[in-house]
Amino acid sequence: MSFNDENESATLLINCMDKKGIVASVANFISSNNGNIVSLEQHIDGLKNMFFMRVKWDIKDFKIKKEDINFEFQKECGEKFEIKWQIFFSNEKPKIALFVSKLSHCLYDILYRYYSGEWNVDIPLIISNHKDLQDIAEKFSIKYEYFPINKENKLEQEEREKELLKKHNINLVVLARYMQILSSDFVKEFPNKIINIHHSFLPAFPGARPYDAAYNRGVKIIGVTSHYVTEELDAGPIIEQDVVKVSHTDSIEDIIRKGKDLEKVVLSRSVQKHIRRKILTYNNKTIVFD
Amino acid sequence: MSFNDENESATLLINCMDKKGIVASVANFISSNNGNIVSLEQHIDGLKNMFFMRVKWDIKDFKIKKEDINFEFQKECGEKFEIKWQIFFSNEKPKIALFVSKLSHCLYDILYRYYSGEWNVDIPLIISNHKDLQDIAEKFSIKYEYFPINKENKLEQEEREKELLKKHNINLVVLARYMQILSSDFVKEFPNKIINIHHSFLPAFPGARPYDAAYNRGVKIIGVTSHYVTEELDAGPIIEQDVVKVSHTDSIEDIIRKGKDLEKVVLSRSVQKHIRRKILTYNNKTIVFD
Amino acid sequence: MSFNDENESATLLINCMDKKGIVASVANFISSNNGNIVSLEQHIDGLKNMFFMRVKWDIKDFKIKKEDINFEFQKECGEKFEIKWQIFFSNEKPKIALFVSKLSHCLYDILYRYYSGEWNVDIPLIISNHKDLQDIAEKFSIKYEYFPINKENKLEQEEREKELLKKHNINLVVLARYMQILSSDFVKEFPNKIINIHHSFLPAFPGARPYDAAYNRGVKIIGVTSHYVTEELDAGPIIEQDVVKVSHTDSIEDIIRKGKDLEKVVLSRSVQKHIRRKILTYNNKTIVFD
Amino acid sequence: MSFNDENESATLLINCMDKKGIVASVANFISSNNGNIVSLEQHIDGLKNMFFMRVKWDIKDFKIKKEDINFEFQKECGEKFEIKWQIFFSNEKPKIALFVSKLSHCLYDILYRYYSGEWNVDIPLIISNHKDLQDIAEKFSIKYEYFPINKENKLEQEEREKELLKKHNINLVVLARYMQILSSDFVKEFPNKIINIHHSFLPAFPGARPYDAAYNRGVKIIGVTSHYVTEELDAGPIIEQDVVKVSHTDSIEDIIRKGKDLEKVVLSRSVQKHIRRKILTYNNKTIVFD
Repeated sequence: MSFNDENESATLLINCMDKKGIVASVANFISSNNGNIVSLEQHIDGLKNMFFMRVKWDIKDFKIKKEDINFEFQKECGEKFEIKWQIFFSNEKPKIALFVSKLSHCLYDILYRYYSGEWNVDIPLIISNHKDLQDIAEKFSIKYEYFPINKENKLEQEEREKELLKKHNINLVVLARYMQILSSDFVKEFPNKIINIHHSFLPAFPGARPYDAAYNRGVKIIGVTSHYVTEELDAGPIIEQDVVKVSHTDSIEDIIRKGKDLEKVVLSRSVQKHIRRKILTYNNKTIVFD
Repeated sequence: MSFNDENESATLLINCMDKKGIVASVANFISSNNGNIVSLEQHIDGLKNMFFMRVKWDIKDFKIKKEDINFEFQKECGEKFEIKWQIFFSNEKPKIALFVSKLSHCLYDILYRYYSGEWNVDIPLIISNHKDLQDIAEKFSIKYEYFPINKENKLEQEEREKELLKKHNINLVVLARYMQILSSDFVKEFPNKIINIHHSFLPAFPGARPYDAAYNRGVKIIGVTSHYVTEELDAGPIIEQDVVKVSHTDSIEDIIRKGKDLEKVVLSRSVQKHIRRKILTYNNKTIVFD
Repeated sequence: MSFNDENESATLLINCMDKKGIVASVANFISSNNGNIVSLEQHIDGLKNMFFMRVKWDIKDFKIKKEDINFEFQKECGEKFEIKWQIFFSNEKPKIALFVSKLSHCLYDILYRYYSGEWNVDIPLIISNHKDLQDIAEKFSIKYEYFPINKENKLEQEEREKELLKKHNINLVVLARYMQILSSDFVKEFPNKIINIHHSFLPAFPGARPYDAAYNRGVKIIGVTSHYVTEELDAGPIIEQDVVKVSHTDSIEDIIRKGKDLEKVVLSRSVQKHIRRKILTYNNKTIVFD
Repeated sequence: MSFNDENESATLLINCMDKKGIVASVANFISSNNGNIVSLEQHIDGLKNMFFMRVKWDIKDFKIKKEDINFEFQKECGEKFEIKWQIFFSNEKPKIALFVSKLSHCLYDILYRYYSGEWNVDIPLIISNHKDLQDIAEKFSIKYEYFPINKENKLEQEEREKELLKKHNINLVVLARYMQILSSDFVKEFPNKIINIHHSFLPAFPGARPYDAAYNRGVKIIGVTSHYVTEELDAGPIIEQDVVKVSHTDSIEDIIRKGKDLEKVVLSRSVQKHIRRKILTYNNKTIVFD
């Protein structure tokens, strides 16, 4: 679908048990109210008998007012099929906070997409446990909040971070090679709203120093994995993975360098899918619509 | 979707001008007649304002008899939206003829899929302009018809080939590295029913000896392209492409060898998408549903 | 390098501690005896200070007789640098035994390469713990030896298998999706001479049913790994890996099918690198020269 | 090899007609003068009977002074084998000028590598035919020279650009999506010293608007190509190519966005290979050592 749709659109992400008639019911809801479907994708998990759907429609001439859609949809479709859904409107800008540490490659990549207009988002805030990248934030006039973390102050600092996120109405946290593990309490407050990039092909090499581990095992391909953060480390729903070939001629430094080129692109692609409302999670897995 | 659906299903491939209500109308047709949608994908070409859809449903308890579906669908949906459609049923086995010349890699790959049961098809016939691969056909007890081709006898031999194809009710011709150009007359009789594998990344290097051309140009990646055959050489709708890296250390022989590994897999994947009714063509392009 | 070199060549695979002058010494040995170097690649593992080299030279006019090369090389280069080496001559055909179980995709792929002449090897023997693939072996007139394996008879059956391998002078065992774990005793007798294909991206998902595990974890890419077999399961030196993208639309059956297309190509490429004498192992890793 | 070699090293890039004894002669030159070879790769183009080699050695204890190496190498090896060579020392920083127009993705990618220290180079100068990216240059305190180009002033403006390049001792020009064709006169002065990124998989879609052409042809993979600029447009020696899959769901905007992610990474990788002295050109092709 075209990235720059001119008319305002609504996107509905749906999941429920599979039953006959869901597609027809939802499609009727939209077209009988004068909405024009721009794209519709559905998926059935045959093993779990679950139904998933993403539908996007032009709401320029839609007969139901935006603020009433939830109520009307529940009445006409939601109740009958016990649907869980989320609805998004194309003119609402996602508000993103970046968490960074010392490495700048993901930060530059995201800043490019933000400043060039590739992403239609707000990034009011960068949070870091180090001061290293402050000067980059300043070049681009983004607020940089420094929260040094140690065992003693971790929960307290996270409280202050959460306040900042609320103050800025952040609805997506992007860990752009943030080298700290977030506490369970923090993670629980942002379900499916924290995206991390892990520098291995999960589930291989979770945890610290995966490139060293890959080098030592003598793998011939290295990978990176973006995922929603859950309480268990590096075990959340995978959004995207990508790989690059390595060989005996690659030192650990070469592997790290090659990996960085993957990390930034895979992280940014995942953020983009999230903000285009392409992702549903279920059963610790993602459904990423096209 | 699961490959081995147990119940019989129908698959509808649809295209028409985009209008409001098509998805709802088709989904209603299915669910109001007690069909259960297994998968539905739709696509809109915004530039051309064209609507495309693939929908597959379980017809075990469908209220309309198979032989009446075309009539009823036309009445309920087709007329209103001026839809063009094709319908396929899962218990109808595609009938495939293979055209080969001297190279055996694609032939072995297809024979594996046929004999191992990966493909639920009939392959009653191999046609060739050379005798080289006859012994392989004999090992697998497939009829091998030898039609030597030269400028003088070409049209006449093609007539005999067409008779054979009709006699065996062939509905898909697979050119498994067949080293002859089919005449326009032949091609016209099998629109979107002849799949070829070309050993270059089209539109680069059409025509003869593409690997030599790739070597001479010093490309760093070679590719292959499967496509439906149309009257213009190597210019039909592309079904699938894939690539492999090469370097200065690769001789032409190395490139040919690497290319063969791509050719066989890409050709077979394309045939599989065709026989699973995943492909629509429009405007010399394909829509390949997931 | 060209695959079909016409003149006979020797290939030397070398490893030792890195010291000044090894390349010069070996190159002098070859050129002062009228050999012409066709290709030379060296590699230094800086962390371990180890030196590795592959050099191939035309021996048509070489002044040292083939049977004397080992002695002369030891005298001139080997002693001085404490080199470990292997030498191979291009007119010696590798003798390969295939171990198979029930799945035929790797077997077909190898048979194609054997019968089409892509590989210049002998394959006198297929060993299996099942009868399923016997008819394919018969079509191609290869001896098929059936050894059913259970806990009680395993070591005894392996003894008989080893006798057969010796009788046929087998110097490479290829496990073409052989679904039995070889005993330590068996493995020890064929160091770096047994190649296995494991259907996961190792070290992720070792052991049984890796595709199911990949499906359940929700990975977005699946992989396969070829490696030399060592006593520890799925932990030997990795020769090659490759991957393919999957998505939520892929059922376990789809994943298995996509995986098979990788398995056969990666296994065959690894065998080819082995028989072209491109692989050195060191420290449970491989050096795979170009 | 390790990226951060601590000792100073010399890198020699060699080509000549293939003869017996070249490797031995060069390796002797290095080791007899107390140099330690860090890496050596050679390649023979069998069709052209040409010999190519890259050798890098530690010169900390080398007996020949840096300024005398050329003379001594010519005397000992160069004359005898009629070798053409270039020599580089690891402590000489490449001086790079960037040419840009309106798109910023390649610029950001390069700035990241420069400022993070991934590249050990100087970038004193950005030249552009538009003012759009001036503010980015200013953020990073790089001189931005604006040269608007039209048919009338082109050669004159290029003269001024060349003066600037000389003034800054530039030895590599990187066209980071520079949307102007350089004149033959300009190109001739910088043989194998201008790297361009073309946004197609050359030789497919040379010239303007390749993504539109790819969309219209319905290809299933798009690519990008980095190459040295020669007088013929988009026809110079290819350094690197890479690709990404596209489908019918991708609009032209999607294709452009996916392509940008490739362009920046491929351009930067090519520059890196150039500045690490990994590339030899011959016969309008490149030899890119590992």
